[in-house]
Amino acid sequence: MRLLLISSSNVHGYVYLDHPESAMRAFLGGARRVAFVPFAAHDHDAYMTKVRERLARMDLDVIGIDDLDRADAIFVGGGNTFRLLKTLYDRNLLTTIRDRVRAGLPYLGSSAGTVIAAPTMQTTNDMPIVEPPSFAALGLVDLQINPHYLDPDPHSTHRGETREERIREYLEENDGPVIGLREGSILQVENNVITLLGEKTARLFQRGAEPVEVQPGVISVPSASSAD
Amino acid sequence: MRLLLISSSNVHGYVYLDHPESAMRAFLGGARRVAFVPFAAHDHDAYMTKVRERLARMDLDVIGIDDLDRADAIFVGGGNTFRLLKTLYDRNLLTTIRDRVRAGLPYLGSSAGTVIAAPTMQTTNDMPIVEPPSFAALGLVDLQINPHYLDPDPHSTHRGETREERIREYLEENDGPVIGLREGSILQVENNVITLLGEKTARLFQRGAEPVEVQPGVISVPSASSAD
Repeated sequence: MRLLLISSSNVHGYVYLDHPESAMRAFLGGARRVAFVPFAAHDHDAYMTKVRERLARMDLDVIGIDDLDRADAIFVGGGNTFRLLKTLYDRNLLTTIRDRVRAGLPYLGSSAGTVIAAPTMQTTNDMPIVEPPSFAALGLVDLQINPHYLDPDPHSTHRGETREERIREYLEENDGPVIGLREGSILQVENNVITLLGEKTARLFQRGAEPVEVQPGVISVPSASSAD
Repeated sequence: MRLLLISSSNVHGYVYLDHPESAMRAFLGGARRVAFVPFAAHDHDAYMTKVRERLARMDLDVIGIDDLDRADAIFVGGGNTFRLLKTLYDRNLLTTIRDRVRAGLPYLGSSAGTVIAAPTMQTTNDMPIVEPPSFAALGLVDLQINPHYLDPDPHSTHRGETREERIREYLEENDGPVIGLREGSILQVENNVITLLGEKTARLFQRGAEPVEVQPGVISVPSASSAD
């Protein structure tokens, strides 16, 4: 199984997909036809057009998910995770995508598309604007992912929960592990080896333990059961 | 129907519940026994103890939701909205609370407790750490509420959605209106009159229109159908 899980398509100081472009090129190799899934956005056509134009500059041909059989890779774009997952359920695509990726189709995800590679979407940052029939997601990796991971701002006067507090609440109710993937970071999965790409560390949360910073490179993820 | 819907129990520069205390005193009048609902937290007992101690300083007697028949008011505390709503469903309390409040029992809510006074919990900021059977909530008011409302930070390098962008996504999929209630703000509802308390304006979002700032005082909320 091959996955490239991007924290965010937009990174401060870069335009759309410029930051992850080199990692995407290396990951895709000779793949040319990419099936793009625009369901995290409200306007699918506009999103398809935007991504088709952007990927054309990488000599990639964007096709629709209806053409998945012709695709060399699948790319699930960011937006609202609830909307993305609900639409995948409504169109009966979850099993199709999971089976194809497990059979070797390279999977690219960004933001919401990265969240749903996890067992559930329960570590999303998004607002529950629509109600999917279940929070269960693709389960391509054995850890929960929180993209756009944001460190607490010591100068903030805001009293809403920090991201770390939200993930701790998740671990009050569920096993981990959860990886907080900062903007600019990417998880690459090749068979069972997970590599953290980018210059930043990631923050790994486990139930009953203090979170730790994980360095770029091959990372070892504790299993959920060992965290109990 | 009487409601006091607090954006946040904690406000910068104040300790727990100090900022809304005067509004709570005025709202409660002669009420003495308050049934507190701690289900937004993981540890119900610890939360009950904390609130019991705090409300004792206001000469209020905190009792459990099992004693709702003896209560002069109900107070639903903040925490995680998914956890709060799921627990209310699991314990079959949603209808009980709705009926009692519609029959005149004063309702205090803070943060998650304010969110669930709306028709649905779909404008929460919280992480979906558990899965309630439905996002439908108490529906005591006819507008969606986003507590801890946060203005975009023009200096931010973060590329996740701003709160305004998230509420705009909500309005792509649902009718409004949605009120963004900044920390330190309170909505008081007496029969059908809604008053914005505090010094800050609130931000009112409607489908197909630009958001507007609402001044403290009596506010008029457009109906969902007129926003179409």
